Amino acid sequence: MPADFTERLRHIQRQQNSVLCVGLDPDPDRLPPHLRARHSLPDAIARFNAALIEATTHVACAFKLNFAFYEALGAEGWRALTQTIQHIPADHIVIADAKRADIGNSARFYARSIFDELGCDACTVAPYMGHDSVTPFLQQAGRAAFVLARTSNPGAADFQSCMCDDTPLYLQVGWQVAAWSAATKGTGGLVAGATDVESLTALRQTCPDLPFLIPGVGAQGGDATAVMEAAARDDAPVLVNSSRGIIYASDDEDFAEAAANAAESLCATLNAARSTA
Amino acid sequence: MPADFTERLRHIQRQQNSVLCVGLDPDPDRLPPHLRARHSLPDAIARFNAALIEATTHVACAFKLNFAFYEALGAEGWRALTQTIQHIPADHIVIADAKRADIGNSARFYARSIFDELGCDACTVAPYMGHDSVTPFLQQAGRAAFVLARTSNPGAADFQSCMCDDTPLYLQVGWQVAAWSAATKGTGGLVAGATDVESLTALRQTCPDLPFLIPGVGAQGGDATAVMEAAARDDAPVLVNSSRGIIYASDDEDFAEAAANAAESLCATLNAARSTA
Repeated sequence: MPADFTERLRHIQRQQNSVLCVGLDPDPDRLPPHLRARHSLPDAIARFNAALIEATTHVACAFKLNFAFYEALGAEGWRALTQTIQHIPADHIVIADAKRADIGNSARFYARSIFDELGCDACTVAPYMGHDSVTPFLQQAGRAAFVLARTSNPGAADFQSCMCDDTPLYLQVGWQVAAWSAATKGTGGLVAGATDVESLTALRQTCPDLPFLIPGVGAQGGDATAVMEAAARDDAPVLVNSSRGIIYASDDEDFAEAAANAAESLCATLNAARSTA
Repeated sequence: MPADFTERLRHIQRQQNSVLCVGLDPDPDRLPPHLRARHSLPDAIARFNAALIEATTHVACAFKLNFAFYEALGAEGWRALTQTIQHIPADHIVIADAKRADIGNSARFYARSIFDELGCDACTVAPYMGHDSVTPFLQQAGRAAFVLARTSNPGAADFQSCMCDDTPLYLQVGWQVAAWSAATKGTGGLVAGATDVESLTALRQTCPDLPFLIPGVGAQGGDATAVMEAAARDDAPVLVNSSRGIIYASDDEDFAEAAANAAESLCATLNAARSTA
């Protein structure tokens, strides 16, 4: 297996013929009722995720876990998180969608949690606190930090579009991450939301070499084809994430089969756009 | 007990004659050796924190837990976190220094984790993702979100000083938080580092009514007296945090006594500056 994160990502994407990342964001109110009826909530979540992983592994190159949904259950949620990560096949990329960052001394401990304790391959990181809050996530060869540049939510415009020296803040974040990544053993990438294709295009122009993690396809409204045309390049991998559109495709006993169908359909759409990009 | 967070903070500050927040940030490499020798790491941390809480309760109005140090130990770390929170007297303010934020749907689960599952009174929140990432932490009366405005670390200057429409980004964050707070049941506050008194002064001018959480006194080099003169106002409470300067005052069996002495000394310095501010 290649030691460099980007090489490893390219390898699994070729092997799977997929840029699809499946987001495992288990909302207790949306779990299939038959699982909730038979198991404790943390157990139901672990089983829900295990079935989703098994059903979509063939068509995904990565899985992303949003930590909010696990932490809402405290220590038991953390156990369900650990069990889920252990269930993901070793050749697939595991992304901790934890949006961490802190002063350098504390950020080292967050990186230890994500990479050493949990064994994830990558972490989403918030940029506001600057270089010493991000670089602890860039110290390990083979691991990656996807730094929030342009997010997919309504509040993205509040600060990310601020013009700083004639450049929007999100592009300043982009080129800073490229510089930090070049000086460290790990890989810096960017989170760039699917809901704003114009910003995605500008980010790809500013950062031609960085891997992008692209959320916001599906429930949040992003268009898969437009996203691939804006950001996919032969030498700069993209990961396109869908969570709710896949994992809640059905809330009945056929939820895993429905998830597989939704994942296959989205993967095919992404591949079709990739071939013409 | 008052239902409003700011009222409650004022009440405990009057009762304790203190604006001191003690930061419980347990670095495994700096725990007293006698605790490490006799207990598992999570147990040693829980005992370390319990002794520190008992030794400093009389001179603190709040305790702040930086989640990085607990998460580095996985589910067992989360248990030590829970045990520590349960050990803090009910009238003291408990701050989750977790620096969370996410799209609205996910941020709701982080708020549930911090306020409902763990029972904390306040959370530190990162502003980069904008209003729908912050306001879920502002929905509960009696709780507070301290949003990162100007942090105390070297990387603070990377983005926080960017001039946006002739105003530095950290001041834009300040007035946005004031606006969001005014429209919600909870209380918005700001994190403003002690290491940059000029920015702290500007933030207080921009946000005359918000409570400030001020880290960076002690190990990070901030001057307690200058901080109080810049930010303390009769009608806008400040919380001044010290972590390493108190909890690692001694690494021997007298660590709790040494922590009490360090906390008393800092509290006295802060009170002297407060009386002349």
